[in-house]
This record gives sequence, C-alpha cells and structure tokens, in this order.
Amino acid sequence: MIAQTPPMGWNSWDCYGAAVTEKTVRANAEYMSSFLKPFGWEYVVVDIQWSFSGAKGHAYEPFADLAMDEFGRLIPSADRFPSSRGGAGFRPLADYVHSLGLKFGIHIMRGLPRTAAHRRLPIADSDCFCHLAADPHSICAWNPDMYGLRCGTPDAKAYYDSIFRLYASWGVDFVKCDDIAREYPRCRREIELISESCRNCGRDMVLSLSPGPAPLEEAEHLKANANMWRITDDFWDDWKLLKGMFERAEKWCIHAGPGHWPDADMLPVGALRQCDSPDGWTRFSHAEQRTMMTLWCMMRSPLMAGGELTKNDSFTLSLLSNASVLEILKEGWCAHPLRTLPEESVWISLHRDGHGAWIALFNLDDRKRTVSLRSGDSGLPFFRGLECWSGKPLRKTSVLRAVLDPHDAKVFLVGTKEL
Amino acid sequence: MIAQTPPMGWNSWDCYGAAVTEKTVRANAEYMSSFLKPFGWEYVVVDIQWSFSGAKGHAYEPFADLAMDEFGRLIPSADRFPSSRGGAGFRPLADYVHSLGLKFGIHIMRGLPRTAAHRRLPIADSDCFCHLAADPHSICAWNPDMYGLRCGTPDAKAYYDSIFRLYASWGVDFVKCDDIAREYPRCRREIELISESCRNCGRDMVLSLSPGPAPLEEAEHLKANANMWRITDDFWDDWKLLKGMFERAEKWCIHAGPGHWPDADMLPVGALRQCDSPDGWTRFSHAEQRTMMTLWCMMRSPLMAGGELTKNDSFTLSLLSNASVLEILKEGWCAHPLRTLPEESVWISLHRDGHGAWIALFNLDDRKRTVSLRSGDSGLPFFRGLECWSGKPLRKTSVLRAVLDPHDAKVFLVGTKEL
Amino acid sequence: MIAQTPPMGWNSWDCYGAAVTEKTVRANAEYMSSFLKPFGWEYVVVDIQWSFSGAKGHAYEPFADLAMDEFGRLIPSADRFPSSRGGAGFRPLADYVHSLGLKFGIHIMRGLPRTAAHRRLPIADSDCFCHLAADPHSICAWNPDMYGLRCGTPDAKAYYDSIFRLYASWGVDFVKCDDIAREYPRCRREIELISESCRNCGRDMVLSLSPGPAPLEEAEHLKANANMWRITDDFWDDWKLLKGMFERAEKWCIHAGPGHWPDADMLPVGALRQCDSPDGWTRFSHAEQRTMMTLWCMMRSPLMAGGELTKNDSFTLSLLSNASVLEILKEGWCAHPLRTLPEESVWISLHRDGHGAWIALFNLDDRKRTVSLRSGDSGLPFFRGLECWSGKPLRKTSVLRAVLDPHDAKVFLVGTKEL
Amino acid sequence: MIAQTPPMGWNSWDCYGAAVTEKTVRANAEYMSSFLKPFGWEYVVVDIQWSFSGAKGHAYEPFADLAMDEFGRLIPSADRFPSSRGGAGFRPLADYVHSLGLKFGIHIMRGLPRTAAHRRLPIADSDCFCHLAADPHSICAWNPDMYGLRCGTPDAKAYYDSIFRLYASWGVDFVKCDDIAREYPRCRREIELISESCRNCGRDMVLSLSPGPAPLEEAEHLKANANMWRITDDFWDDWKLLKGMFERAEKWCIHAGPGHWPDADMLPVGALRQCDSPDGWTRFSHAEQRTMMTLWCMMRSPLMAGGELTKNDSFTLSLLSNASVLEILKEGWCAHPLRTLPEESVWISLHRDGHGAWIALFNLDDRKRTVSLRSGDSGLPFFRGLECWSGKPLRKTSVLRAVLDPHDAKVFLVGTKEL
Repeated sequence: MIAQTPPMGWNSWDCYGAAVTEKTVRANAEYMSSFLKPFGWEYVVVDIQWSFSGAKGHAYEPFADLAMDEFGRLIPSADRFPSSRGGAGFRPLADYVHSLGLKFGIHIMRGLPRTAAHRRLPIADSDCFCHLAADPHSICAWNPDMYGLRCGTPDAKAYYDSIFRLYASWGVDFVKCDDIAREYPRCRREIELISESCRNCGRDMVLSLSPGPAPLEEAEHLKANANMWRITDDFWDDWKLLKGMFERAEKWCIHAGPGHWPDADMLPVGALRQCDSPDGWTRFSHAEQRTMMTLWCMMRSPLMAGGELTKNDSFTLSLLSNASVLEILKEGWCAHPLRTLPEESVWISLHRDGHGAWIALFNLDDRKRTVSLRSGDSGLPFFRGLECWSGKPLRKTSVLRAVLDPHDAKVFLVGTKEL
Repeated sequence: MIAQTPPMGWNSWDCYGAAVTEKTVRANAEYMSSFLKPFGWEYVVVDIQWSFSGAKGHAYEPFADLAMDEFGRLIPSADRFPSSRGGAGFRPLADYVHSLGLKFGIHIMRGLPRTAAHRRLPIADSDCFCHLAADPHSICAWNPDMYGLRCGTPDAKAYYDSIFRLYASWGVDFVKCDDIAREYPRCRREIELISESCRNCGRDMVLSLSPGPAPLEEAEHLKANANMWRITDDFWDDWKLLKGMFERAEKWCIHAGPGHWPDADMLPVGALRQCDSPDGWTRFSHAEQRTMMTLWCMMRSPLMAGGELTKNDSFTLSLLSNASVLEILKEGWCAHPLRTLPEESVWISLHRDGHGAWIALFNLDDRKRTVSLRSGDSGLPFFRGLECWSGKPLRKTSVLRAVLDPHDAKVFLVGTKEL
Repeated sequence: MIAQTPPMGWNSWDCYGAAVTEKTVRANAEYMSSFLKPFGWEYVVVDIQWSFSGAKGHAYEPFADLAMDEFGRLIPSADRFPSSRGGAGFRPLADYVHSLGLKFGIHIMRGLPRTAAHRRLPIADSDCFCHLAADPHSICAWNPDMYGLRCGTPDAKAYYDSIFRLYASWGVDFVKCDDIAREYPRCRREIELISESCRNCGRDMVLSLSPGPAPLEEAEHLKANANMWRITDDFWDDWKLLKGMFERAEKWCIHAGPGHWPDADMLPVGALRQCDSPDGWTRFSHAEQRTMMTLWCMMRSPLMAGGELTKNDSFTLSLLSNASVLEILKEGWCAHPLRTLPEESVWISLHRDGHGAWIALFNLDDRKRTVSLRSGDSGLPFFRGLECWSGKPLRKTSVLRAVLDPHDAKVFLVGTKEL
Repeated sequence: MIAQTPPMGWNSWDCYGAAVTEKTVRANAEYMSSFLKPFGWEYVVVDIQWSFSGAKGHAYEPFADLAMDEFGRLIPSADRFPSSRGGAGFRPLADYVHSLGLKFGIHIMRGLPRTAAHRRLPIADSDCFCHLAADPHSICAWNPDMYGLRCGTPDAKAYYDSIFRLYASWGVDFVKCDDIAREYPRCRREIELISESCRNCGRDMVLSLSPGPAPLEEAEHLKANANMWRITDDFWDDWKLLKGMFERAEKWCIHAGPGHWPDADMLPVGALRQCDSPDGWTRFSHAEQRTMMTLWCMMRSPLMAGGELTKNDSFTLSLLSNASVLEILKEGWCAHPLRTLPEESVWISLHRDGHGAWIALFNLDDRKRTVSLRSGDSGLPFFRGLECWSGKPLRKTSVLRAVLDPHDAKVFLVGTKEL
C-alpha cells in the first residue's frame, strides 16, 4: 500500500508556475537526493502545462498549441523537456529521478484537450473517440485547455485508461490531478473513474486531487478514491492564509489516516516565484515557517516543498530537515486541537508507540504572547520531555507554558504516563 | 423607432426545433401573408442552428461541423437553405419574405464558433482575430457550439460589428440572441456590445434576448438595450407553465412600453413538434389558449406563433385573428393585475383613447368558477361594453361577473365614464 | 365604503413619540380644521402608549403601569387625557374632533396587556378570560406591553370584539394597529381576526397596519383585510430612506386601489421631535420635501403629516395645501414608474377623467441634473399642460425636460390626446 | 476540578416530564445507590417546573402560579416536594441523596419568573430589583414562565448570584440550565453570567446547558463556560434520532475533554413516559440500545439514564452496568470516527494507558450487515483482544469483522503494539 504516511516531496509550481524545465527539475532532484532524502523527502513533481512550449509564469494562454500524440494524450514539450523527444515522453526524466533514489510525479488536468475533441482524434487501444468522450459543457473555470469527460460513456473510461497506461510506461509514481477536488458534486463520477484507471494501470501511483477546498461532507468519498486532496484554495506565503488553515485543519484532522491525507498544500519556503524574478523569496518570517511546519506535521498534511531547493539558505534547510519535528508527521496519531481561539491554538498528537504525545502551542496573535496548557486539560498527568524545534529539555511541570513571538510556535514531545 | 407596439410573428422552434428548412419557412410566410398579416402579424423568424446540416429535432450535437465563412461567421447550411448557396446567405430568403409584405428574422447564439477560435480565424474588415475575441471560459450551459466574447477587447467589438453588418446585408429585420437574457451579471457587457453593434449596423432590427428568466432587477438595463426579453425559461403547452406566467406577468407588467417589451415566449398553438411527428398538436385546451392569448395581450407581451401555420384548424386561426382581442395588444396601456389569487386573476388595461378599459377575468382553478369584480374595486363608475372573444354586449352593471370553465378567461371592453 | 381615496391626516408620533397629550391633539385638530381641511385632510390620530402616564419621548418603559378597565382593555391615561376621566375614554376628545368636521383615530398594539393575562382578568360581555386569550410566546420585538393572542380560541375573538366595540362607543374612525404588518406568516390569522372585529363593530373605521415592511407576496391578503399597510420600516427625515422608497414604491404601486393603499408612512415635515426639543425641525430640504410629496401622491400613499402643525412655516403649509399636487392623490390611476435609475426616476399616473396624465421627474442624484422623457417612451403623442408645483404652463413639446436641483422633483399635468 | 470524566446519573424528564415528585426521586436514588453506584453513576437530577403544583406530563401551562420566595426565586412546590415546606427548599431531599453516597441536581430556566418582574420584587442581599433585571423581550420559545435577564445590569448579576447562593445552601451539585445552549449569539453574555455565578457560589456544581443543538462554532466558548452542553434537540427512543447522532458526534468528538463534554442527551431506556402511562417502555430494540451506549461511551458523552430505574428489567440493568463498556467512557481518549457512511460507522478511541484502543463497529442499516476494518486503516499493526459487550476473546487478525444485526454494534478492546 502506498502513502501509509503523508507523502513528502517537491513541486515546481511555487517557484516556476506553468514554465518549469527539465534542467530545473533535475537540479532540484539532485539537491533533494543529497540533502533531504535522509529525512524522508522523496517525490519530485512537475506541475502544470508541461506540454506547452510557450508557457510563462503563473498565467495560462487561451487556445495554446499543446503537444499531444495522435491519440489526444498530452506529451511533454520537447523545447522544455529535451529528453522527451522522439516519443520518449517523461520516461528518461523519470529514470533519472529514480536513479537518485527518488520518485517522480506529474500534474494533469481532468479531461482531454479541447482540440483533440474538435479534431475527433481516436483513443489509444480502443475503438473510442475523443469527441465522444469529451463533454463540451464541462470546462475548467481558470484553465482553457481541456474538456471534462462524459463519465457514463465507454469513451471516457477508455481515455482515462489510456493516459494512466502511458504514465505507467513512463515510470510515473505520483499524479496530481487538477480542476477536480472542489468540483463536487458534478465531478464525483469523474473522480471515481480517474481513481479506477489509476489503480488499474499496473503501477503504484499516489493520486492527489486539487484544487481545494474539497467539501468536508465528501470526506468518505475522498478517502475511498484518493491518497490526498486539497482542503483550501492555493496556499501562499501570506499570514492570513496560514492563520485560516487552523480552522480547516480542525475540521479535517479526524480524516487523516494511512493511505488518505487531507492536504494543506505546498510549503512556500525559500526561493519562490523564480519565473518572475531570481530574487523571489518567501514572505513568511522564520516564526511563521515554524508555525506552518508544526501545523502541517501535527495535522499530518502531505509536505511538498515549493521553493527552488538549490537556493535554500541554512534556515530553510534546517526547517525541512529537523528529524524531531518530522517524526510527528511519521509517528503521530489521532491529532486534534485542544483549543482554537483567534489569538492562539493548542494541538495534541499521540505517539504511536503509546508512550508519548506531542503538544504544540501556537501564537496566532500579532503580539508576543504566553500560551499555556494545564495538564488536566490535556488528559495527561503532567508534562515532561523536550521541545522539538530546539531540542531543549522540558522539566516535569503541571502547566506547559511558552512565551512566543508573534506567529511563532513550539511543539513538545512529552511522556504520557506517571512513572 | 421600431417595436412601438409588441412585435407579432412566427418562430420555427416550437414546430421544427433546430431543424427548420427553407421550404417550411416559405410556406409559413405565405400563410401568414394570406391569413394573418391583416391582423398585424409580420415577423418570420428562423430559429437555432441553421448553419448545421445535420440538425435534428430539439437536441444539439456536440462538436458539430457548422457552416461558416473565412471570418468565423456562421452562414446557412446550403443543404437546408438551398437559396443560400454561393455566398448568398439569407439574402434570397429575406427578399422573398419581404416580397410578401413581411419581415425576416434569425436566431443567433452570443459569441463565436469554438472552432473559429481554435483555428485562429481573422475577423472581417479588421486586423482582429477570433481567438483573441473568444473567452475560453464563457460557454453556454446547454449548447456546445460557441465561446462568448472577451468584451473588453477590440476583437470582440470587431466580431459583433462584423456579424451585424452581414445580417444587414442579408436584409434581416429581427435578431433573437440566445444564451444571454438570464446570464446577468456576467453577460451585462456582452448585451451592451451586441445592442450597440445592432443599432450601428445600418438597418433597423428588433433585438430579442433569450432565454429567461431575465432578472427583474435588471429591468432598466434590458429596457435600454433590447426590444424584448424573455421573462421565463422556455414556455410550452403545459398548464403549470401557463399558470406560473401570471406571477411573472405581475412583476414585469410595469416595464412594458414602446420599444421595450417583457416577453412571455412563443405561443404553442396548433401543429407543434413537427420534427418529431406530423401528428404533433398543442396539448392546451381551447380554454387555456384563450387564457394565454388574453394574458399575453393584457400584459403586452410580443406574440410569436409557434405552430406550423399551414396546418392551423379553424379554432387556431380564429384565436390568432380576433381583432377585438388583438386591439388590447396594440392600444392597451398601464395594464396590471387587480387581483392575483391561486384560483383566479383579474387584470385591467386602459385604452389609450381615454374612453375605455379592458377587464380580464381568469379562472385558474381546475373547476368551473364564477369570477367577479365590483366596479368600486376597479376605479370605474360601473361596467358597460362588450366581451371581446364573443362580441356579446355587456349591459350596465356595478358587478362584472363571469362563469368560467376551468382555465378559461373572458375579457371585457368597458367605458370609463359616466354618461 | 371607506378609504376610497388614500386617507389624509395627522399623526402624533413624529413630533411627540409615545407622550402626546390631549391639549396638543386639540391644537393640531384646530389647525387642521382651519388650514388643511379644505384640501382633504381629515384624520387626527393619537399614536402609541396613550394609556401610560409616565410615557416620554420615543422610548418604551418595561413593566410600565398601564391604565386599563376591569376587562383588560387599555384606557387613556387621565393624566395626559383629562377629558377621559370617569370612564369616558376617548369619547369627549373624539366628539371635539368631530365638532371640527374632522375624524378621530387611535393607535393600538395587537394583543392584550401582559398584566391583564397574569391577573387573569375576564373579557367584557363574554365568559372568556384574558389569560386564555393571551399567547405567552407571542410578544413584540420592540415594545414590552402586550401578549399577542391565541387566535384559534373563542377568548381571542371575544377580546378583539370587546375592544373594537369600545372604540366604536368612543367614536373612533381610524385604528392604526401596530406590531403586525411585517409579522407574516405568524400574524396572518391575527390580522384576519382584527379585521373581522373592526368590520363588525358597528362603526366605519379605517384599519391601518404597522410597521413595515409588509411582505409583497402577501399583497392580496393585505388588500382583503386592511385599508392601508406600511411598506417600509419607520420613515424619517433622512435622504437615504426617501431614496430607498422609490424601490418599494415601484414594487407596490400596482396594489393601490379603492379601499386598500400601500402606505409609505408619515410625512416628517415641519416641527418634529417636539418631545426632545421645541426647536426640532425636519432635516429634509425643500427640494426633498417636494420629492417626497410628489412620490407619495403619484404612488397614492396615504398622507399623514407628522409635524406639530401649529408651528408650520409658510413653506410647510404650502407643501400640504397645493391643490394641483393633491389632485394626483385623489384622481390618479394606474400609476407606475417609467424609469428607475440610481440617479433619476420618472413616473406616470393617469387622470381618471381620461384626458390627462401626470408625469413626475425626480432627480435622485446629489448634483444638479437634467431629467427628460421622450413622448414616445411615455405612450403619449406629445406633452402639453402645466407644472403642478409652480403652476407654470408647459408648451407643446416632444421631449419633457427639467433641470432639477439635487433631490428635487417636478410633476407635469399633460393632455393625453392629439387635438 | 469537577467533571474530569463525563458525568453519569439519572434525570426525571424522560419518565416524569414536568411532574416528578419527591417520592419518585427518592426511589430512584435508592435504586441507583444499590445497583448503579458501583459502576460510576452518581447524579440524581430533578427536571423542569418543580415549583408548579399543577404540573402534568411533558406540557407547560401558561400563566401558571409558581412557588417563589419574596425575592423572586423559585422554590419547590410543597405539594410535590413535601420536605421543602417551611422554607427548607431542596435541602432535605439533597441531604437524603447525599446520605446514599450520591449527588443531587436540579433543572432551572435561564432568567427570572415573569410575575416577579411584573410584581417588581426586590433581589436578595442587594438593592436590586427583578423588574430592572428582567428583559421583557427575552423569552423562551417553548416555556412561558420566565424573562431572560438584561445582562449588562447589576440587577442581572445580583439575581443570578442570589439563586446560586440559594442552591449552594440547599446542597445542589449539578445545575441543568435550560433555554440557553442553542440561543447563541443572543445568550452569549447570559451564559457567561450564569457560569460566573455558578463558579462563585461557594460549592462545586456541574453546569449543564440545554437544549441543543449548541452551535459548533461556539465550541471554545462552551468549553470555557460549561461542563456539558447539548449537541442536538431533545433525544428520544427513535432510530432516526439515534442514527442522526453519528453525524453530530463526528463534528463534536474533538471537543470532549476533562471538564467539558458535548452532551448527546439522556438515555431513553427502560420505563419511560410514566406520567402518561405506567406501561410506558422504550421503543428502542436491544440492538439499538447497545448502539446508543457504545456511541455515547466512544464519544464520551455524559450518561444520564432517563427511565424509571426501579422498573428496570435485567437487560436494562445489564446495559447500564457493563464495566467493560463503561471503561471506554472513563478511560477513552482522542476518540473519532474512522468511517461514517449512511449504512455503517467505525470509531476508534485510545486507552489512556497507551497499550490499548477500542474499535467500535456499527451497523446503521436496516438489514444484517458485515462491518469490517483492516488494521492498516486503523493505524494499528493487527487486532487482538476482546469484545466488550460479550466479553468474548478476539484472536489475532489483520481484519476486524463483525456480522451485525440491524442497528446493532460491537466494540473491541485491542492492544496497540506488536509483541
């Protein structure tokens, strides 16, 4: 089984938008292999519009000329992914990523290219056709490339089977499917179809659904059909968005479990928006980045670094490679908030070994603040252990108390029993 | 000025759906000229998808092959409109209709053909392009042919100008623009653009907007930009829809006036659904047809007969040619309901000559019912005159009273002053 | 039949709140008799809480000690209405008002006094009881005095019959019933019960329902059960409220007719808020007062002057005594807006004589503005007549045009026919 | 600190409505002391309207004559609670309950008696008055006795202080305050005031808020101000209500913790509705009762038996005295659903000792159904332990599977670690 713990990796969107290139992907994979792999990071994911030679930044061009095969399946733009020439697709790049001990992922939009439908292309290994699979009324609200599929038809099933078989032949390990997670109820069937084609394609692939917010009342459907799904709209380096994530995390935390993870989106840390400027850098303070990492680990969200890894400074690398904190992601259990106020939040996550628990204290206020928790309110007899970010020991106390800078967090690993 | 009184005519949708042919249009025009023109009927309107050779019935085919010129303008299918061959467009057919003393109209969808955008066609008499005019996110919810336009661009204006110039060259007198009247607020600018191109094209054309319901709170925008607009979704021969029209009529009645008319949709009378079967006939009873005609005339809705005219029986012809009733449409003023209950309705409309008023009594119940009105409740001193459908005189009385069959109506022309 | 045209009169609320006294009522009645009666003004109405000796201004005191008889019927406070002493009630004051050739009205709250229920008082001329008539869950949201009634019980009917019989014995001609017009659907039955007791009490009384907004979808119920009903919450001398009335007037205008009038509330003109200060004066400009009077007359709202009449200046008196303008109220018909924009409005009302119509032009903008109307848009052949506020003649023209100060209005009486 | 685990006890409402008597309370206390106390049951709670001699069944009488002292504080009806005569109040009954080793609770309505306000009574130990404390606009939607308080006034604080001091003098251990938990936001301040008076009265009392549904978004306010609060409207022996509780339980489970418990309402088991008939009995099947007890224990809802205890049959007693199941209530932690479908539900709760967890399998369908759980989906390595209702051992397995009768449940205690 895949995704037994929340997937960890890198995604190209936050730094390169729709315009990532092979060269950059390779460089980030190499960095990850050297510096992050030991801490559990493994997926390298190429985000949107890799089939369009003219892609630029974070915007989309209408009626763009997308690279596709004779069966209406998008293939990488050879200008941007040179190794894909001659029909090789993403196979050579995936091979390289695998050679580094990592896994390879791609982004797709639900549906098929509009021009494939207007050109009435056949569907591979079938007697079906793109114009019979496509639903001319099912379009994305923000990207102009595709038509969604008419899910009741054999043509729709044949099309999704055909692309996942192609991705399996390339060696893809992770598919981020876009324009779908918040499209309930109309995409309910399409999610099932994609999930089925993914599971039947002959290769293990993590299926990730975007963008959010996915509807909470569909939690069971999402758990049954995807490995991760977005719980908010695009997340960026903006305190308001980070603060708002606490409310979503509270609602979704009970739905995290092996194989199915509510996803708080990429981590906008380090060098961002490189497609706009080489000087792009996260606007989050160090404190805010600690708060983000702590929350994502406590709630067990997948971790996808969004910055250009090769430009990481030492703080960013330390943020992504603190083994004590990442242990929460891997070994946490039954996490949930004990308190959620506009100014502060307190979370608990149990260690699967039965001997420990993590308590995170967050200052959501714009001023320095003391956040505290009585052991009686946590269900623990007292607190004793260590603070994970700093490694400092915590002596036995009945009240956990932290003086926190604005937007900062601390997280303590404590024992659960009297000794 | 056009449309000083509510337009009257014939439209092909109710009998032929998307599949009307030139032969049928000519036959209906000839009938109208002979039997209905003396009563004010004048517009002959070809409804949707006249550019698609394969059109059938009331459904639409996705990714259909539409006839268009090299500038992305739809032209009639030569298979269905033979006189249009060789670039003549609708000109020969319009000429014929004009020769009968009538006026000629066509249906259009807002926007331009999707394939014209994907093929990046140029726009006539301009340096603009279809793919720059088209908005890939603006599609119709029920018809797959077109993209709406990006209204801020010069390309969008150039495109609408180009089609209305073409229609003017054909001799079109009436344009029914579809997928627009209920699309507020997103189509607000597109309505203005179409209205402007229509007024500037060099020929008087009635501009009719569909489908409804147009939003009541946009009444002033509609009055400023169109000659008629639909106030409900498609109307058919179903009593529930007819009964429901009373509520819409009440809300819209004060917005009827010279040049701008709330439109209760086509009259589904006589031979309908001919594309399905030659035996198709209206399901409305005679009583219901009287109620419909009476309400449409009282509220001053445009009158567009929907049946195959050449198959009219004597009742249907009498319904459409009662001069006393049609006088309400032409000479009524300041009409509004005096009473609207689930079981009955009473309307008043003043005669523009200052000497008379019409009082309509409607039985909306499923049982025989006596509907009455005291003169005091109408603002009239007493009632004296005649019943318009039957021509029977009404003797002086202080209470107007009619025993009405289920779903039937009577309408009285009465004097407004003591003599 | 009563209220064949919209009632006109004076109400004590705008100048005295809950604290009006007999002396003041007499003075205003005398002024009305001398200066306003010739123009149609006739009702003198004592507003809320006349049974509480300690009433002050526009606020209400909880658990106040209200004067009532042994049957739980409120009677005038003898401190404030000395002529009521000894069980005379409002009879002596009504007699005096009648002696001036005017009519007398009072305010009531729906329901019965809370203390009458807690004291379990009997109901007059019946074997019923107040505590059985009262519904302990039906209270007013803003006044603490009463319980609404349990409308299905004989006790409730007995109570309402008992108070209307009392009012008939006093000589009351007008009852303003409060806490009811916007309380649909829960007060539906209570309105019917009150209406029935009113009609059966042996004396003609205008029944007026407050406060608004009454729901538009209950128009037929209101027309069947009341002579006037408020269409907005309390109206005061604030331009925003006046501007907002245009929208309500548009929705309600078709429901005005003999015996049933949508009510735009009192006219806050002249000396207001006398209970707060003897210097209180309307904040409306002269222009705004013309706009208000013009709209009220066009839409045929009842006219209830709200100021202390004896302090009227010459402008205020002229506003209330322009016979040309008041003729619109009495003789208008089928009025409705021709145009309603945020910056301007145009209304038409027909003269019942069939020869004329009124056209009102309103400037709703905060700047000077030219408002105009083409005759073609009005349905009239041309315009010729006079402006009603000034009396100036209007020469024949095809475009009516007025340069209007901010918030000002003009209204023209024009002929409807070519001569 | 009180309510460190969810309170357990008996409440008179389900069997006696508003009409419980001292005799019955004593009998139930005696039964509890003998048969249930060993399992943790301790509170004996007298429900609503104990100050009205004429109370009958589950309905309320308007304008009832309630027993109160000279300070507007309700006291027990001496007819129904003879030991309260002579100003003793509930002291003698509380003493008796305490003598059995149990705790004593009462029901109150927020606010003060309406008649105390109308009579302008003084408030004990203060210079405040009931009519200044009462808000005449704040009433209960279903009970006619009280006015809510004007929370900003010193009078309101004085009143709530005065009643809690009285209850402390009586020896009350538990107060169920009604008409308040679902009245957010308008009762927000009143909750705080009551909470404060309760905490300051000099005696530990559990504060329980009714009726529900309390709003989820007020969870932190409730946790800060109450020990338990209702999450639904009144719960009765109806499968639809029980099934619906799963959705509420899912939303509220993360808010359960020491001192603050979301409350799923009384357990309608055994002899119910005794005020209507001595034959009254729960309509829940045995399976449904197991499902209810299992859910309440898993979610850690307070347990308040609702039936007449002295009539318990052996099944009912066994239901309330299964130590294995009740251990879940006392020792569970971090409980939440793993799956919630219309047909089935699966919950997990961790044992605080770190070595075990409970897994509950529920069949919500109307047919026999096999409900199962893979260990991988639970986060546990495998399952081994025992079923709590039956005590049967569970051998090591990677899939937990139970064949369940309609509406039935099983709950397994399993170890959390490989050994």
